[in-house]
Amino acid sequence: LPNFTLKELAKKLSLKYEGDPDCILVGVAALSLANSTELSFCRSSKQVPLLEKTKAGAVIISPELSSDFLGNRLLAVDPQQALINALALLHPKPAIIPFCHPTAVIHESVMIPESAFIGPGVVIGARVLMGKNVVIPAGCFIGDDCRLGDDVCLGPHVVLYNNVRLGNRVSIHASSVIGADGFGYHRQGFSGPWQKVAQIGGVLIEDDVEIGASTTIDCGAISDTHISRGVKIDNQVMIAHNVFIGEDTVIAGCSGVAGSTNIGSNCILAGHCGVADNLTITNNVILLGKASVSNSIKEPGMYGSGTGLLTRAGWLRLIARLRNLDRTIMKINKKLEKIND
Amino acid sequence: LPNFTLKELAKKLSLKYEGDPDCILVGVAALSLANSTELSFCRSSKQVPLLEKTKAGAVIISPELSSDFLGNRLLAVDPQQALINALALLHPKPAIIPFCHPTAVIHESVMIPESAFIGPGVVIGARVLMGKNVVIPAGCFIGDDCRLGDDVCLGPHVVLYNNVRLGNRVSIHASSVIGADGFGYHRQGFSGPWQKVAQIGGVLIEDDVEIGASTTIDCGAISDTHISRGVKIDNQVMIAHNVFIGEDTVIAGCSGVAGSTNIGSNCILAGHCGVADNLTITNNVILLGKASVSNSIKEPGMYGSGTGLLTRAGWLRLIARLRNLDRTIMKINKKLEKIND
Amino acid sequence: LPNFTLKELAKKLSLKYEGDPDCILVGVAALSLANSTELSFCRSSKQVPLLEKTKAGAVIISPELSSDFLGNRLLAVDPQQALINALALLHPKPAIIPFCHPTAVIHESVMIPESAFIGPGVVIGARVLMGKNVVIPAGCFIGDDCRLGDDVCLGPHVVLYNNVRLGNRVSIHASSVIGADGFGYHRQGFSGPWQKVAQIGGVLIEDDVEIGASTTIDCGAISDTHISRGVKIDNQVMIAHNVFIGEDTVIAGCSGVAGSTNIGSNCILAGHCGVADNLTITNNVILLGKASVSNSIKEPGMYGSGTGLLTRAGWLRLIARLRNLDRTIMKINKKLEKIND
Repeated sequence: LPNFTLKELAKKLSLKYEGDPDCILVGVAALSLANSTELSFCRSSKQVPLLEKTKAGAVIISPELSSDFLGNRLLAVDPQQALINALALLHPKPAIIPFCHPTAVIHESVMIPESAFIGPGVVIGARVLMGKNVVIPAGCFIGDDCRLGDDVCLGPHVVLYNNVRLGNRVSIHASSVIGADGFGYHRQGFSGPWQKVAQIGGVLIEDDVEIGASTTIDCGAISDTHISRGVKIDNQVMIAHNVFIGEDTVIAGCSGVAGSTNIGSNCILAGHCGVADNLTITNNVILLGKASVSNSIKEPGMYGSGTGLLTRAGWLRLIARLRNLDRTIMKINKKLEKIND
Repeated sequence: LPNFTLKELAKKLSLKYEGDPDCILVGVAALSLANSTELSFCRSSKQVPLLEKTKAGAVIISPELSSDFLGNRLLAVDPQQALINALALLHPKPAIIPFCHPTAVIHESVMIPESAFIGPGVVIGARVLMGKNVVIPAGCFIGDDCRLGDDVCLGPHVVLYNNVRLGNRVSIHASSVIGADGFGYHRQGFSGPWQKVAQIGGVLIEDDVEIGASTTIDCGAISDTHISRGVKIDNQVMIAHNVFIGEDTVIAGCSGVAGSTNIGSNCILAGHCGVADNLTITNNVILLGKASVSNSIKEPGMYGSGTGLLTRAGWLRLIARLRNLDRTIMKINKKLEKIND
Repeated sequence: LPNFTLKELAKKLSLKYEGDPDCILVGVAALSLANSTELSFCRSSKQVPLLEKTKAGAVIISPELSSDFLGNRLLAVDPQQALINALALLHPKPAIIPFCHPTAVIHESVMIPESAFIGPGVVIGARVLMGKNVVIPAGCFIGDDCRLGDDVCLGPHVVLYNNVRLGNRVSIHASSVIGADGFGYHRQGFSGPWQKVAQIGGVLIEDDVEIGASTTIDCGAISDTHISRGVKIDNQVMIAHNVFIGEDTVIAGCSGVAGSTNIGSNCILAGHCGVADNLTITNNVILLGKASVSNSIKEPGMYGSGTGLLTRAGWLRLIARLRNLDRTIMKINKKLEKIND
């Protein structure tokens, strides 16, 4: 691991420092766990009480909070940004060591670039194209006709079905599945067996998208499912066939977006959100946790759903009231009308 | 890929056509993307505006909408059914090339049928039985005593624990896990460590079931978890131990069904539905997205839950009101009584 | 499989028996499926009607219910506990046969204990330490610097990223992913591309934790994500970075806990619960199914969320009322005030 003096670090991060310029820092750690060779950070005034006891060699802190702290410090107007930069210096990503494990099963039509890392048991289908510096660790499955841009980094056991195209710098974490069949069935009338609608579309994932672990993004029915540049998707998310997600939109864990829905750019979906099929959500929409969207959203802004949390007793009373709410309000209004008459 | 003239296609699909009988069609594509050798389709009147600009060689369209379109067309009373049939002709499933990859690890007690496809790194346990034309691609794990019917088609990395029995034509997409231990624990009193209840049941999945990617279906505690003929289950669904699902029921993404619950046939669960344990849901029930079921359902019909979506400000006001709804209504009623007195 | 006479079983289970002491029992089965050599169990008075028709060789039953049953029986004050003990005798876990499959790819720095089972295609990274009797079946991926205690048992395809530490007797079912990057991004202002915050923490999972299939537990951002002794986590659960879960807490399927939230000990989260980030939930809290937690919980007890389930028509009326609830109540109150004036 690299190490820096406080002075060197301040210079590299373009920050002012106060304290011992020669203090040596070899890693980043939380305030309560850091030792004298570690850099820590104070994110908000809530953490100020931890400053007193910290053994950190130095602390990233905003100028307003720094008066509370006499130890070595890096003064940052945006401590989170300074932390990101410090992490990049003190905990750089390990360099990719180009390698192709002998147990990988690679179709004869595929050219593995010299810069690639291909782990044990990887399977790569026909006509797959890869850019520079791709990382495909153990157990990944890459279907026919997939394309991986430069610096694509997969986790173990990622499955790309046929015809998935990943832009540059796309990351996908372990066990996610991209391009499985969309959920498309048809029947005549309202009962009887369902017929499968063949799902022949692909998945297009643009540059700088990051996808978490155990997430599924289905292939399009006929045209592509499309994830735009800069989108960040968490773990356990479900994106159905022919969904479009606009640039820089963020989707947190356990959320689901149903088929053919179009989500704008710069949106945020918190955890466990559900969006029904064939809707359009405009740009700059924020859905709070567990929001349930069953109509298109035309106005930017923040939206939520649900009753909030209640004690069980209160909740049971609430449910009983809600079951009759319409009637209750009609009764009250009738009584009021009578009185007014 | 196969290709057909419009006339040939019309004949094979038992549809009337209008336009150039010799127009050659080699694939299916969306209205906005299709080129002059591709067949497209117009699902509803909403898509009519796209007809004007389409470059499709021909379009599947219902007779009512066809007056709006002068290009080559196939007239279909049920365009979705015609599309399914056209996809089967123009994009047929690739034939299975029987194969057994040398890296597959197959228990000595197992006979691999000549028609099977077994991919790299597959592991097959003791006494597994397979029908004809099974597809077990890379990385699948088939536990002891599993049985796979004819035409079973798995995705990469599917895990079947011991004693999972799949009927004919069952499809399971990538990384789904069938037969993991049910969530069964016991303790005496209300605190302290939990003891595990051994889960010794299996999973029975009947003919024509399709299961999405990253779905989990647990084994029964003592008897089987049972998925009936024709059930379709989407991605990221959780089916707990000893659940029974009736024929032709459809369960969309991110839904969960808790232990020992019995769901009837011909039901539809939309996305993110939750059904509590030990319930019975009758046949022909439709649960709308995010429905939360905590009691048995005895009447067929459509059911829903939740407050709908509100703006954040409206939602916060709603939650405040709901917290006191019972008291508010009691107060109002008291005042009304007083006035009436 | 082992077999016991009723008398032997009663002695081993420290239970009284009634009926034929020499009845031989070779397994456990449900009342409706058991044959004359199988032991069954009657959990509650609901199951009493099944007793009449059962062909079970013997039945575990509580003394209060036993008067209804004349067959061979084991009398148990806690039938569930007796069942657990009987399962352990009649369906013991198969012994681990130490083995290391030749296709496993094991870093040269790792010492595989003689008692370990290592399946085909397993990948084990640098400096991994293992206790006694670990089971690492086909396709597992163990990252660098992981530590596995005694009797750790993984399912197929489990992925442990770097620096995951598992205590003794930890079980993790198939395809779960432990230690993937937390969902941490930062940007300046309210639009534009997101920067990734490097996630350098690990995951600490203490003794006797069981984790279901397709569950994800992310690594900490800087310090560890921490799952305490005895925690039980079901399938399809999402635990975000830096979450702390206290001892003996149980989390059912499809639930999600967002970043840096601290859940106490001895809590129960039913299915589909969602807990927002940076909260604290005290000990002994029970969250009912689909509970949505957006504030810290300071009082032990049971909590719920949601409107319950309504027919579609009733639900649409409810939603319409809820959208205007605040205004409706204000109007009613105004009218009441006027009348009182």
